Amino acid sequence: MSELNQQLIQEHQVWMQRAIVLAQQGQYSTRPNPNVGCVIVKDGQVVGEGFHPQAGQPHAEVFALRQAGDLAQGATAYVTLEPCAHYGRTPPCAKGLVEAGVAKVVVACSDPNPLVAGKGVEILKQAGIDVIVGVCEEEAKQLNLGFLKAMSTGLPYVRLKVASSLDGRTAMASGESKWITGPEARRDVQHWRAISGAVITGIETVLADDCLLNVRELQHANLEQIVQPKRVILDRQGRLPLTAKILQNPETVMVMGPFRSELARLGVVQLDVQSLKDVLKTLKDFQIYDVLIEAGATLSTAFLKENLVDELISYVAPTFLGQSARAMFNADFVSMTEQLRFKLKEVTQIGDDIRLKLIPSQESV
Amino acid sequence: MSELNQQLIQEHQVWMQRAIVLAQQGQYSTRPNPNVGCVIVKDGQVVGEGFHPQAGQPHAEVFALRQAGDLAQGATAYVTLEPCAHYGRTPPCAKGLVEAGVAKVVVACSDPNPLVAGKGVEILKQAGIDVIVGVCEEEAKQLNLGFLKAMSTGLPYVRLKVASSLDGRTAMASGESKWITGPEARRDVQHWRAISGAVITGIETVLADDCLLNVRELQHANLEQIVQPKRVILDRQGRLPLTAKILQNPETVMVMGPFRSELARLGVVQLDVQSLKDVLKTLKDFQIYDVLIEAGATLSTAFLKENLVDELISYVAPTFLGQSARAMFNADFVSMTEQLRFKLKEVTQIGDDIRLKLIPSQESV
Repeated sequence: MSELNQQLIQEHQVWMQRAIVLAQQGQYSTRPNPNVGCVIVKDGQVVGEGFHPQAGQPHAEVFALRQAGDLAQGATAYVTLEPCAHYGRTPPCAKGLVEAGVAKVVVACSDPNPLVAGKGVEILKQAGIDVIVGVCEEEAKQLNLGFLKAMSTGLPYVRLKVASSLDGRTAMASGESKWITGPEARRDVQHWRAISGAVITGIETVLADDCLLNVRELQHANLEQIVQPKRVILDRQGRLPLTAKILQNPETVMVMGPFRSELARLGVVQLDVQSLKDVLKTLKDFQIYDVLIEAGATLSTAFLKENLVDELISYVAPTFLGQSARAMFNADFVSMTEQLRFKLKEVTQIGDDIRLKLIPSQESV
Repeated sequence: MSELNQQLIQEHQVWMQRAIVLAQQGQYSTRPNPNVGCVIVKDGQVVGEGFHPQAGQPHAEVFALRQAGDLAQGATAYVTLEPCAHYGRTPPCAKGLVEAGVAKVVVACSDPNPLVAGKGVEILKQAGIDVIVGVCEEEAKQLNLGFLKAMSTGLPYVRLKVASSLDGRTAMASGESKWITGPEARRDVQHWRAISGAVITGIETVLADDCLLNVRELQHANLEQIVQPKRVILDRQGRLPLTAKILQNPETVMVMGPFRSELARLGVVQLDVQSLKDVLKTLKDFQIYDVLIEAGATLSTAFLKENLVDELISYVAPTFLGQSARAMFNADFVSMTEQLRFKLKEVTQIGDDIRLKLIPSQESV
């Protein structure tokens, strides 16, 4: 690669990084839409910026083009996701970029949504616009792991949250568990809920903790502007009490279990009893692309053993609870060949605890 | 504090940092002596540097003064540990500094060794030398945790190494355990052995693994120049087979158990059966100030429950082994009030695993 090209690519990366930062501003509010950021640059100066704030609101390109006005003529637009090609709630952004007269469009990643899928780029190219795809692609993909996975596979991106002591325990034998991890770690969990379309739990957890599983506290965000995740309860025997606190906001509750008219009257969405994988597929049909599992050992282990987990968020508290305490993972493996291995992606200190981000290991052990 | 004083202290810190880096060069070779570094500065220039390389060799100050020669006159000496005041294998360094005519001595931490304990500073002061104590004290203490603890409490500094899966398991039920942590983590363990005067293990571990527990690989160090740790086997019933590999180098083996003449003939040091705390006291009498415990769950748990551990070095591998696998910590706690809590000091990624450094928590839970 020539030195000039190398320099040009680095310049593209700098502007795309800015577009990614903009896109992140919508992380708690755009669902089910993806997070997208856009920067318009002319003669080395930013002339327009925007991000998609919320479903129903204009796309990132629209805000950026509005701000740029006539300066968009001959400019370069940086977009974190391929501009849309279809008429939805807003007209297609690819057309908007053409009409504004931009000379070049740099795209971080293609949109696998069958309604777009290359068509956005095609519209731009046919209008004679220079298009580059793939700048900062990996970072841009992180913005929309759920959306991208759902569009290409039909399944949401699944995060499993676990919290345990250093010796892998989640509670004493009696069930006593307050608190193993500290307040910072518990607060940190709110972020993962807030970027999720749904939180899945088991009926046992609801019966034991009478938990809400909603977002109650979030740094750098206004709680009123976020999209609260659905709370999905797996309840094969229909044991959810109508007095459960989680039913105080029934409009965001989904229950998988035998049909119950009392739940229907509350407005709770009910799903037929089905396999874990089918539950995930069904949630995808509800435009839920990011799922967080917060459940006990039995359900968590089941999701792991069926290879349905894309990312493990593991909080480890620096304490020993002893061998009588409850195990965090309850499969009965006999040989090391059965172990479930992960690849460490990130380790962070959160208060007095640590948080590991892990992805299933591709290699066989 | 005046701005001038502030500036002076920062200058002292810069030179003391250099002395600390020098001291570290002896970390694998000075035992049972402490690690000490010395820098002599005149008119803002280093005129002499030194560190203590090995017991029997000159102290750090001697090397630095030799290098400085006549330039030591009126200079400032930075020493990480209070200069010695007694005639040992070498003449007292405090006297050496006086004779060389240094004008000022900056000391990081006092020496609690009853043979020194303030006497070094006293000699300097009586000779009219300006003495400052406490610059970079915390960092300098890290150089000699074992020496400092042993001199002030009569017990060595005890590190407990554990390695487990994410669900707190050390082996399958069958005992199969190769390998839970990766090669980088296993290599990292060699460092902790190499800074220790002794590695303690239980007879069960020797019988199961036929382990050597010596230092076989070390980055940035020549294996021939290090002091190999003693290998201490706790063997209350005298079960150590004479064919154990660890006895191939009997001169560095110590066995606590009933007296056996066949071990005596090999030159193995034998200790009477005694409590864990008394074993540690005895090791201190052998000038062993840093101890690493590498043992199974039973012995590790015993040291932890008796509050004999100063630091936990915990390697965690990103894998689940299941509830039938062996627990890393086998106390039978019933209530959360019994839990053993630690304070997280450091977390580091080592290859595909993580390493936690933890110290017992002072607060009651």
